[in-house]
Amino acid sequence: MISVDKAIQIVLKKVKTLPSKNVPLQNAQGLCLAENIKADSDMPPFNRAAMDGYAVIAKNTTKTPVDLVVVENIRAGYNPKKTIRSGEAAKIMTGSVVPKGADSVIKVEETRPCDGKTGVRLLKTIKKGGNIAKKGEDLRAGKIVLRKGAKIRPPEIGILATVGADTVQVFSVPSVGIISTGDELVSVAKKPKPWQIRNSNSYSLAAQVRRTIGDVEILGIASDQKSKIRSLVQKGLKKDILILSGGVSMGEFDLVGEVLKDLGITIFFEKVALRPGKPTVFGKIGEKVIFALPGNPVSTMVTFELFVRPCIKKMMGFTRYHNQILLAELEQSITMKKKRREYRPALLRYLENRWVVSPVDWHGSGDLFSTTKANSLLIIDEKVERFKVGDRVEVMLIDDFS
Amino acid sequence: MISVDKAIQIVLKKVKTLPSKNVPLQNAQGLCLAENIKADSDMPPFNRAAMDGYAVIAKNTTKTPVDLVVVENIRAGYNPKKTIRSGEAAKIMTGSVVPKGADSVIKVEETRPCDGKTGVRLLKTIKKGGNIAKKGEDLRAGKIVLRKGAKIRPPEIGILATVGADTVQVFSVPSVGIISTGDELVSVAKKPKPWQIRNSNSYSLAAQVRRTIGDVEILGIASDQKSKIRSLVQKGLKKDILILSGGVSMGEFDLVGEVLKDLGITIFFEKVALRPGKPTVFGKIGEKVIFALPGNPVSTMVTFELFVRPCIKKMMGFTRYHNQILLAELEQSITMKKKRREYRPALLRYLENRWVVSPVDWHGSGDLFSTTKANSLLIIDEKVERFKVGDRVEVMLIDDFS
Repeated sequence: MISVDKAIQIVLKKVKTLPSKNVPLQNAQGLCLAENIKADSDMPPFNRAAMDGYAVIAKNTTKTPVDLVVVENIRAGYNPKKTIRSGEAAKIMTGSVVPKGADSVIKVEETRPCDGKTGVRLLKTIKKGGNIAKKGEDLRAGKIVLRKGAKIRPPEIGILATVGADTVQVFSVPSVGIISTGDELVSVAKKPKPWQIRNSNSYSLAAQVRRTIGDVEILGIASDQKSKIRSLVQKGLKKDILILSGGVSMGEFDLVGEVLKDLGITIFFEKVALRPGKPTVFGKIGEKVIFALPGNPVSTMVTFELFVRPCIKKMMGFTRYHNQILLAELEQSITMKKKRREYRPALLRYLENRWVVSPVDWHGSGDLFSTTKANSLLIIDEKVERFKVGDRVEVMLIDDFS
Repeated sequence: MISVDKAIQIVLKKVKTLPSKNVPLQNAQGLCLAENIKADSDMPPFNRAAMDGYAVIAKNTTKTPVDLVVVENIRAGYNPKKTIRSGEAAKIMTGSVVPKGADSVIKVEETRPCDGKTGVRLLKTIKKGGNIAKKGEDLRAGKIVLRKGAKIRPPEIGILATVGADTVQVFSVPSVGIISTGDELVSVAKKPKPWQIRNSNSYSLAAQVRRTIGDVEILGIASDQKSKIRSLVQKGLKKDILILSGGVSMGEFDLVGEVLKDLGITIFFEKVALRPGKPTVFGKIGEKVIFALPGNPVSTMVTFELFVRPCIKKMMGFTRYHNQILLAELEQSITMKKKRREYRPALLRYLENRWVVSPVDWHGSGDLFSTTKANSLLIIDEKVERFKVGDRVEVMLIDDFS
């Protein structure tokens, strides 16, 4: 039996980032950039008016009020035709090109029309450069604006659009297949017989995958017969990552384990010092990755967050693999039973300017119902025997607070 | 000019939650449940073995070692045929039905085979009920397991599957249309002339919408002509929410504003005491919602988070509308210029067990590049004049830390 940390280390060591590919900008969200992106022009690309007002020569405004002749009306997207000379001004709108000759923009609120709108009276002085965003002030053409490895979020999408990247090179997203095993399972639409239960794990696992990526397929239920398991696993090995749930506790794993070994899959670990989730299996064949997770719903949920999510993140090209962990104040005492590291479903809340956490009341790893009250996992180190109320404990976020 | 809080209040008061509809379970993720969900059977549905081992009568185990006759082999999904009598045991696997007569499960590790595998030797005693999850212990049939209004996350998906909800009643998701306005804009694939810029706002706005929902369409660029704006806005009014960006700063808004008023749209506010993002417009026609956001990329981003995201959340049926706000320790001092509330792009980090925040270095609301370093907005209240290093300041999360 290996430790959780060692098991995570093995997963991250064995899986590789997928090759990159080109995708349309609108499909790049949430993915990892596989190229450096450079500015294709200065930003702003011209001296840009930061206010609605009048483009003027600052020296003309030292004594106010002063009247200037308006020689042009400049809107955004318009290329100014005239050069501003002493005694002249151009009406200008925010985002527009400041005309040659002008060195500042005076706000419209600090002016009045005069001479029947052909002139403008400036009521205040303006200093040179005032209300102008200078050409290239944000960025010079050729400068790297986004680096390989960046996560593509809304601001990065905006920047990619700004520099004209209508397609973008990203690391590929792994495809994921999900199989549930067990003779007791029936599909969701069926009414189970008294000794059967519905296949819920495939759905919750698919939902966990979808929190990060979209390419996930529920492949079906494998009953506890070697031939059935084998044929579904073979189908699953067309995916980059195959997740099995169930069929890994003592006795049972004989069957799934035999099938995996028959198919030439190398198993790197079969048991982790973890509660819930001890019988977690990780293997590989070629570059295909196989997880066999315990079938108890809470175990499945926890082992996915600990081992599968970091695996997906690494394959996607990210270098930050793990869920955020933070310290919170414990609201109730906890006594530990086992010398395995424990990840207990918990409710983390931000109350009166501090984080507080309570483990949710549950009946063990089969009790998925209690997890609807959880948004995090309280981490109980293998060395700890007891936590008191008010202790600061480690909590892993598994939800996004939105 | 109204305050940010008042503006948000108006938005939330004016928009209504959309009607509910039925969707397949796999499409329900992230949505808001529109019905109470009840358990359709007890959970567990039978007395369930929590360990691999032997189902026995506890009284038989008071003196150990003791040898019992194994009368049946029970796997998951198998309906036990025999009743366990004194002196008998059934081999049983985790998740299986505990047979009649038996009242506890002894772990396989605490037993040895005997009599050539037809018998089992128990090495330890087990107490009544040991290693059994009792029928109905997690949940009784008919009990509400998920309530109307719940966010459907992976655990909820698992529970919906468990109770056989292959379709589920959820509140509808608003459709969103996005229009950018401005003669200076060209599409992403084009090389802008020196006085033009690419339309990046439509893309970053669509990405901001997609962080919550998928149904978003970029409708195009409206040049500064009434007829062009009018025809695109009419197209956009087929959506539940129409977002315009640009064309709202002084002078400019004359045009967009005229079109909106011509089309019978009621405007509830046009200016908010906010920096960046003062010229933010919110209106409605029938149940259609219209936002006209300022065109500077950072202003667009901020006003989306403050006004549009809560609007989407409310339409989706959620009662928690706002991004999480938390306190963090300021890493650099800030001096304020304006008496408007400020939301400054900032980098929030969890360092040495505490949250620290720094505003990112930026050149004002046109500078989208600096926002790639941000994951949050530092909130600077209208009354504050200066923050010192180490002050605890309010920070709004706009990213998910994953």
